[in-house]
Formats: sequence, structure tokens, C-alpha cells
Amino acid sequence: MIAGMARLKTNLKIKVQLYCGDEIAMGPGKADLLVAIAREGSISAAARTMGMSYRRAWLLVDAMNRCWSEPLVAAKAGGGAQVTDFGSDVLDFYRAVQAQAEGAGEGPEIARLERLIRAEPLPAKA
Amino acid sequence: MIAGMARLKTNLKIKVQLYCGDEIAMGPGKADLLVAIAREGSISAAARTMGMSYRRAWLLVDAMNRCWSEPLVAAKAGGGAQVTDFGSDVLDFYRAVQAQAEGAGEGPEIARLERLIRAEPLPAKA
Repeated sequence: MIAGMARLKTNLKIKVQLYCGDEIAMGPGKADLLVAIAREGSISAAARTMGMSYRRAWLLVDAMNRCWSEPLVAAKAGGGAQVTDFGSDVLDFYRAVQAQAEGAGEGPEIARLERLIRAEPLPAKA
Repeated sequence: MIAGMARLKTNLKIKVQLYCGDEIAMGPGKADLLVAIAREGSISAAARTMGMSYRRAWLLVDAMNRCWSEPLVAAKAGGGAQVTDFGSDVLDFYRAVQAQAEGAGEGPEIARLERLIRAEPLPAKA
């Protein structure tokens, strides 16, 4: 699975979230869940491979379906679930935005920051 | 205060985090805290303006100081705290990376996504 919150270099994470009102319509966790549903063919199997409860996965799917103008996940004839064409498009666009944001990890400023940061933090004082 | 986790358009948030080992060396909350300390001249006053306990602010400062090769916040002669020149530089570089990441909010993909998203989510089923 492609990590939704990618680590560009050792020390940088860039996270893209799309909001609909106060709800997260798309973000790293929901994008990874869509990929898993497409691969596994059901919400329950996708949840299992992600170490997530079925209830949690179902709530994420329900939030996505309520936030976009069409459902991203739909029931499959004969059982299970599938990512709709609409859901595939949303996922593709989201990945493109994520990739563009990650371009910030290649500028001179981040290289400068990475020279100033420690490989490991000093221990916290007791 | 400049918001660390900026909203580019109504629905997009892009968050940049720099890790040192498992600790967050710099992110939206820590960047905002540095700005507040520089303005207020003490960790306690900065914490107050951010609605954060002194202990929480102190822990964030301690984590920053342990993650970078030099302290970002230091005691001021005569009392209070100040952001060091090193801390100012780190903050400036971080803001530059954040601004670059936010450039992803101006591409055609995000415009497309914003046309597909609802203004508000549909209500959750009871």
C-alpha cells in the first residue's frame, strides 16, 4: 500500500487533508482505506489488513460518502464493497495534490533544515 | 499569529511536520508557539495567549531544544524567554517549506476536487 502520509526524507512528513465542513473528506488514512477496499473487495477485509475495527472503517467510509457529491464506496452485487469510478477519480486527484505538496521536500530550505536537526533527540531530563 | 496549519481554500489543509527520531521537531503547533514566545517574551505568557497550559508549552519547548543542534528558545537575562537567532532561522525555513507545500493548493487537481466535494456533509444516519 502506498503510504498516505509519505516520508520524503528521513525527517519530513507532509499531510494533505480535505475538509467538508468540520469533517475530513479525504486524508492519508481515508486514501489508504480506499486502496485497501479496492484490493480486498470488502470493507471488513480492508479493515483487517489495516489493523482497524470494522466499525472504524465503516465510519470512515460513511464520512467519505457523505462528504462528496457521489459515493466513493458502494456495495457490490453478490456481496462485499467496491470503490466507484468516482471514488477512483477522487483518489487519483488526491494523490496528485499530495505529490505536489511533497515537492516542498526538495527545496533548498528543507535541505538546510535537515542539516540543523539531530538524528535523534537528546534524552528528556528526568 | 500566522496559522501554522494554513487553510489555503475553504477545504484544504496542508500540514508540514519535521521529525527527529520519533519526536516532532517542528510542526504547526510548535511554530505558532515560537511566534508567541517571541512576541510575549515568556513561555508562560505565550502559553496563556494560546490557551495552553504552561506545562504543555514547556514540554513543546523542551522537545524542540532537544531535537535541534542548538536551542531554539533560551532564558532571557532578567527573566522570561526568547527565541534565539538559531530558532528564528529554523522558523523562517519551516515557513518557507510550508509555503511551498501550500503551492499544491493552487494546481488544477485541487480545483477539480473542490468541485466534487459538498459544502457540508450529508447528515449521519441515526
